[in-house]
Amino acid sequence: MSGVLYGVGLGPGDPDLMTLKAHRLISGAGVVAYPALAGAPSFARAIAARAIAPGAREIVMDVPMTPERAPAQAAYDLGAARIAEALEAGEDVVCLCEGDPFFYGSFMYLYARLSERFEVEIVPGVTSVTACAARAGMPLCARNERLTVLPGPLPEAELRARIEGAESVVIMKVGRHLAKIRGVIEGLGLMKRAVYVERASLPEEVVCPLSEAPEAAPYFSMILLTKGADPWL
Amino acid sequence: MSGVLYGVGLGPGDPDLMTLKAHRLISGAGVVAYPALAGAPSFARAIAARAIAPGAREIVMDVPMTPERAPAQAAYDLGAARIAEALEAGEDVVCLCEGDPFFYGSFMYLYARLSERFEVEIVPGVTSVTACAARAGMPLCARNERLTVLPGPLPEAELRARIEGAESVVIMKVGRHLAKIRGVIEGLGLMKRAVYVERASLPEEVVCPLSEAPEAAPYFSMILLTKGADPWL
Repeated sequence: MSGVLYGVGLGPGDPDLMTLKAHRLISGAGVVAYPALAGAPSFARAIAARAIAPGAREIVMDVPMTPERAPAQAAYDLGAARIAEALEAGEDVVCLCEGDPFFYGSFMYLYARLSERFEVEIVPGVTSVTACAARAGMPLCARNERLTVLPGPLPEAELRARIEGAESVVIMKVGRHLAKIRGVIEGLGLMKRAVYVERASLPEEVVCPLSEAPEAAPYFSMILLTKGADPWL
Repeated sequence: MSGVLYGVGLGPGDPDLMTLKAHRLISGAGVVAYPALAGAPSFARAIAARAIAPGAREIVMDVPMTPERAPAQAAYDLGAARIAEALEAGEDVVCLCEGDPFFYGSFMYLYARLSERFEVEIVPGVTSVTACAARAGMPLCARNERLTVLPGPLPEAELRARIEGAESVVIMKVGRHLAKIRGVIEGLGLMKRAVYVERASLPEEVVCPLSEAPEAAPYFSMILLTKGADPWL
């Protein structure tokens, strides 16, 4: 009988924000799999490190970060094949996923390749969206309010149009798009409401008004635009 | 010295989807606080039940569910006053919150009342959004895709306009708005993509195509509209 593939969300970075279920599955796993981007140490593995059992076998997917999609997709093809081999041998595989596996997670590339042949269970995780809101002290949405999640790489005009018609807005993956996004928010007169959060829940976390954000933002950074807490009094 | 107020997200319902941090804070709490809606047993307390220490003192906020806001707000006034009393006496208070405290959570009513006078720490939790996606086997968003979260009580015309311009859509708090929402999705020709999820992660969970959804939906139900997994191959 084939093993089960677990896509396990690890939360935003603080290992304490892992769920009890994620911790239990990782601790008991004989095989763990995870991506490592562009030769850098795997962030997913770092979050899970304390929970991984000493004897566990590790399937590392070396994912190149190139403008073209093909090289990364080839890495997921290879990773999926190695995971499939373990599953066919009857071993369960726990795949480590930053945040939540189905929320801007690379796990969906494995899910697309393996979910028809094998049993897959997804364990949801705390996303960076609510982790950033928590650290910024900014309630995201209540009652009948809408929430819009936008990736920072979207074109300027689309960002502007989407932010203009929105209530609470979360802009993900800010990184090298910071200047463009700041320009859009300034143009809409929303700077006073905008908060910048970098690496939420990690020791090197940054939380500040967008107007005071550093020049260079990492990939794991976010901008929150909300109403603040007063309207809920 | 005053105590600290912790707003602790418990996740969508399965106690195993609580974070390690939430579990640790609840287990160690001398005072826990939580809402109970309209005289019903508290869902938040039920999720946390196994973690609450035997001797813990419990501050229950009885929140009436009325069309007017004033009675519920009065209940939060009273709850905030009782919590403030404990904090002033130097006790920490752990407030139990379904899902995530800042994502459609009633905790923000307490936050608005207490965050200027006391130290408040928010512990983010797994939201029903990613829990439902996990149980439905539907990746929510990837790459540069947008995600729109809409509350079901929104007027029909607004729901239609917001869904029409969106990519992945999550409709929360379906409940008695199910027929209206189904009408909108049918009108837009999106029934084939729509999945209904009720009480995700709990034993009584329901996951089915929207076309097969039960006539009567509870408050804790959701509709997901996504592209499915294929585009990510």
